Amino acid sequence: MSQSRVVIEHISPQIDAGLFSVKTIVGETLRVTADVLCDGHDVLAAHLEYKHETEGIWQAVPMQPTGNDAWAASLRTTKHGMYTYRVLAWVDYALNWHYGIGKKIGVGEMVGSELLDGVQYLEFLLPIVDKKEQTYLKTLQKTFVDKTQYAQAIAEAASAQLKTLFVKYPQKKFVTTSPELKLWADREKARFSAWYEFFPRSASPTAGKHGTFKDCEKLLPRVAELGFDTLYLPPIHPIGEVNRKGKNNATQAAATDVGSCWGIGSKHGGHTSLHPELGTLTDFKKLVKKANSLGIEIAMDYALQAAPDHPWVKEHPQWFRWLPDGTVQYAENPPKKYQDILPIYFETSDWQNLWQELLKVALYWVEQGIKVFRVDNPHTKPFIFWEFLISEVQKLHPDVLFLAEAFTRPKIMAQLAKAGFTQSYTYYTWRNTKAEIIEYLTELTQTDSKHYFRPNFWANTPDILPFALQTPNEAVHLSRLFMSMTLSSNFGLYGPVYENMVCQPVLGKEEYHNSEKYEINHWDWTKENKITEVLKRTNAARKANAALQYTNNITFCEVENPNLIAYFKQSPDGANSVLCVVNIDPYNKQGGWIKLPIEKLGIAPNQPFSLQMQDVIPNVTYQWDTQHGYVELHPSLPFHLFKITKI
Amino acid sequence: MSQSRVVIEHISPQIDAGLFSVKTIVGETLRVTADVLCDGHDVLAAHLEYKHETEGIWQAVPMQPTGNDAWAASLRTTKHGMYTYRVLAWVDYALNWHYGIGKKIGVGEMVGSELLDGVQYLEFLLPIVDKKEQTYLKTLQKTFVDKTQYAQAIAEAASAQLKTLFVKYPQKKFVTTSPELKLWADREKARFSAWYEFFPRSASPTAGKHGTFKDCEKLLPRVAELGFDTLYLPPIHPIGEVNRKGKNNATQAAATDVGSCWGIGSKHGGHTSLHPELGTLTDFKKLVKKANSLGIEIAMDYALQAAPDHPWVKEHPQWFRWLPDGTVQYAENPPKKYQDILPIYFETSDWQNLWQELLKVALYWVEQGIKVFRVDNPHTKPFIFWEFLISEVQKLHPDVLFLAEAFTRPKIMAQLAKAGFTQSYTYYTWRNTKAEIIEYLTELTQTDSKHYFRPNFWANTPDILPFALQTPNEAVHLSRLFMSMTLSSNFGLYGPVYENMVCQPVLGKEEYHNSEKYEINHWDWTKENKITEVLKRTNAARKANAALQYTNNITFCEVENPNLIAYFKQSPDGANSVLCVVNIDPYNKQGGWIKLPIEKLGIAPNQPFSLQMQDVIPNVTYQWDTQHGYVELHPSLPFHLFKITKI
Repeated sequence: MSQSRVVIEHISPQIDAGLFSVKTIVGETLRVTADVLCDGHDVLAAHLEYKHETEGIWQAVPMQPTGNDAWAASLRTTKHGMYTYRVLAWVDYALNWHYGIGKKIGVGEMVGSELLDGVQYLEFLLPIVDKKEQTYLKTLQKTFVDKTQYAQAIAEAASAQLKTLFVKYPQKKFVTTSPELKLWADREKARFSAWYEFFPRSASPTAGKHGTFKDCEKLLPRVAELGFDTLYLPPIHPIGEVNRKGKNNATQAAATDVGSCWGIGSKHGGHTSLHPELGTLTDFKKLVKKANSLGIEIAMDYALQAAPDHPWVKEHPQWFRWLPDGTVQYAENPPKKYQDILPIYFETSDWQNLWQELLKVALYWVEQGIKVFRVDNPHTKPFIFWEFLISEVQKLHPDVLFLAEAFTRPKIMAQLAKAGFTQSYTYYTWRNTKAEIIEYLTELTQTDSKHYFRPNFWANTPDILPFALQTPNEAVHLSRLFMSMTLSSNFGLYGPVYENMVCQPVLGKEEYHNSEKYEINHWDWTKENKITEVLKRTNAARKANAALQYTNNITFCEVENPNLIAYFKQSPDGANSVLCVVNIDPYNKQGGWIKLPIEKLGIAPNQPFSLQMQDVIPNVTYQWDTQHGYVELHPSLPFHLFKITKI
Repeated sequence: MSQSRVVIEHISPQIDAGLFSVKTIVGETLRVTADVLCDGHDVLAAHLEYKHETEGIWQAVPMQPTGNDAWAASLRTTKHGMYTYRVLAWVDYALNWHYGIGKKIGVGEMVGSELLDGVQYLEFLLPIVDKKEQTYLKTLQKTFVDKTQYAQAIAEAASAQLKTLFVKYPQKKFVTTSPELKLWADREKARFSAWYEFFPRSASPTAGKHGTFKDCEKLLPRVAELGFDTLYLPPIHPIGEVNRKGKNNATQAAATDVGSCWGIGSKHGGHTSLHPELGTLTDFKKLVKKANSLGIEIAMDYALQAAPDHPWVKEHPQWFRWLPDGTVQYAENPPKKYQDILPIYFETSDWQNLWQELLKVALYWVEQGIKVFRVDNPHTKPFIFWEFLISEVQKLHPDVLFLAEAFTRPKIMAQLAKAGFTQSYTYYTWRNTKAEIIEYLTELTQTDSKHYFRPNFWANTPDILPFALQTPNEAVHLSRLFMSMTLSSNFGLYGPVYENMVCQPVLGKEEYHNSEKYEINHWDWTKENKITEVLKRTNAARKANAALQYTNNITFCEVENPNLIAYFKQSPDGANSVLCVVNIDPYNKQGGWIKLPIEKLGIAPNQPFSLQMQDVIPNVTYQWDTQHGYVELHPSLPFHLFKITKI
């Protein structure tokens, strides 16, 4: 308890009362709002303060009232890593005096007593202002106490010049300070990225041959040409030989079967080793280096489970759960059992050594040049472990990014994002209708979710061939791909199967028949088709248009046709605007009138205007002079990507 | 960090992360929900725990999952005062084992290993269960390890009987415990009360004579007969003689002027003294006692300001703000000044002594038998002071209630309620149209507000003659009164002016001309009219119908006529249901079809039914057999209050 009368409430953004970090990107502006209240009618002032974890001194930004006792200010991060921010507020006695005397002078009241009262605020300023200001204040001080200079005194007392000084040098008496909140600043790739996925063992140009890191290296120019900046490789560690899975997930493997690369660990080593058939560490580091030279980062799979012959099982049996009959606990989801995988026993009494070892694995690969991890099934390991792991890695390497591969219940996915994951796989894979897509994007971009959950849209994965893609229909493949690339600024593609429209499922399931998870495939990596062309051009458009490098800037546009989805995006500086329109009917031409949010283009209602609408994929330009523009899309190229320019 | 894997989030209700108390009433049930999450697929369990501040041991209620990772349980308070509650959750290894083995047995898997694994859960139970359960478990234990009894073992392992024991004696290993939250349990009057207000000095039966406590005593039977349980008296302390206000707020008072009773303090004493013309402490205590015997509590005005001749000004000059010219700071809202009142200087360096003295004042009156305070202008004193004052008083006297007379900005009113005020004046006074009333009640009863802000609806106060009541129209007075009594379970009436439809304003303002604030009035206290009759009957109906004793149970009913407002209320046990219909058009008969929420009466769609609709004010009964009932209301009695009975 004290004399502080001001209450600070409802600071936004904040995640669970500051328990978790709000996420931002270095160089971006974050608007912070808060309710700032006080009893009575006194004039208040408030500052937003923030500092990077490496800094000792707070930077202060004055907050402005925005109505209904809400205040706002913006901060801008300049470094990777953890920031702290807070709000300070106080009754500003000097400004309060200035306001009161001004009101009284305004109605002709005599304010001799108030002038004398004001001297204390001048005296507070005198020792802290600069020379010129000091001279001014000393004159004022004399005037305020000299009854013969009353007219001069009241003019000065109510002046804007004096108010400016009070604002510049606030006294902050009886200040209220909010709890400190956390803000994590990532590098730009956290917000804007294009991921490509293929299996290294399928990278060979020769059918039937096991691919190698060297083969992967040869595919890098193609990946760069398609416009990707991240190449995600499924696990490249030694594959378990005990209980190995056969083709199509068969429990019995043939001698020639290569097994699932997620069954990690064998006599060749564990999570810090490489599968011998792929190559050596030297080969891998060469691949990483070559990729980097082409603007591509290699994303490694961080998959925390062990094959029965993983070295850990012998070296650290306590990291697995042993049953009373001496057998080890296999992964299971009763009544299903996965005999090729042992789950790690996070509840072991040796958990501290276990966590340290898992941290060492991640740090080892960071030292080999890996800055991006795709994390396998994080929702089957404790949230608190991820908080530990990600924060420990990022303390040393704030530029390391983690993508959560969790397809599970919504609150669990949210919790993983709060625990620190940079990006997350999403339900986009199963959002097909216009209503579903608008509802999902609204949830992702218009709720608190936007402050911590960064979606990464994948149309497919090796685990998921969604029902919608179980067809060789090209229009579906084009529209699903285009939407993943433009609805979300982060997207990914399990490329070879998609480009070839591989679509045979395990009957009745959303899984690939003859899945690459269990066997080597052979692809014609030179093949070009409409899908690869759209990939190239849309990736180029994403790079050329800042509006497409953000997700939370989406505005859906009215269009009456339920088969047409239209969305507008604009860069934060307002300089770049795009309109995307997609026909989700794979069989029929669809047309409709799109209502443009012209106010976002700085156009007033009823103001005449002309817009150049450049469809950047086929590169055709139209001109729109009205708020509603007519669009017609054929399944052969079921979308427009208009870059909008005022002319 | 630890092996606890369960996360508990979003416990509801809670106010600002537990900074303030949720409010409830002794004996009421509070439903608490929380998100309870864990990685993987393990079976979870959760308990809601709570205890009164005087108790050392937590009471536990098992929570049940309600879908989408939300869990719920209810607690019931049994004492006044502060409770703490929290949520505990854990992976329930025994239940998890029971679930898993059941699934495997269900598909015919062999579970020999699992049976051996289960022995540990039986062993945990053995020392803590009762004798009979022990015998059962010992048999089980033998069966589980005896291969010859496999059939028997799997039947027992999957049994409901065993599950019941696991639920009854949870192991709570690696338990996660939420932060502790606060719950304040008030007595029932906090939720259900009827306040009557008059000026004691106007209580004399003789015109021109200053009323006394003895006169007030004679009016008590009338107040009881009208159905009120709380009699609020404006300040009864000595009235300042320096700068006293004259009639109609004149700055110059005549010698005969009685002044505003809110200008407290004179040579006769301050906040613990009584105005000599009203009588002695003995008289006052007699009044309090007599009132109590009639079921009425006297609510005292707690008005923290001082007339310039209040004893504090001399005894504690540091509790007021002195200007450099030696004058004292009067109350002001620049450019307005209120020279009859000095605000208390809460920022004084002597604030601790000041707060203690103000606490002493409240405690003094509690000792004289006062258990209800109406607090004058709490929004001009620090929130933190109210937190201190109310909690200190309620620590000693948890049955003391505080009503906040704050008519100010919404977030400030909310903050006062959070700081501890039992009830609050509201904007009802200015909510006139159907849309305004529905919107306001929805905000009060359907948002978090309902957990801490208890509205008290007043149609008028001595300070406020709203524009809507600046007319001698009886229908307006009847409908505004009726709605205050039935929309909200707490209501108040500044009675004498309302019953007599006094409606002359200060021109252009919402203030009474010849306000009783500045002069003595004379009322015919024997007068009876339609307003007093409606008061009596509606207060009787409030007492007879539990549905009207709650505010948050309101459901507005569809009715197409914008002049008809219909609302349904039901007691928590479902035993009492009422429907109120009000015609807010003071000039014309209005009719419309009301859609009843029959599902709340336990009637399924398309199920035939008959309802007895007893209008308890005129006591006329109708029968409704369909979901839509037709109602027609004339301004002469512009409402129905139907008690609904299924027949």
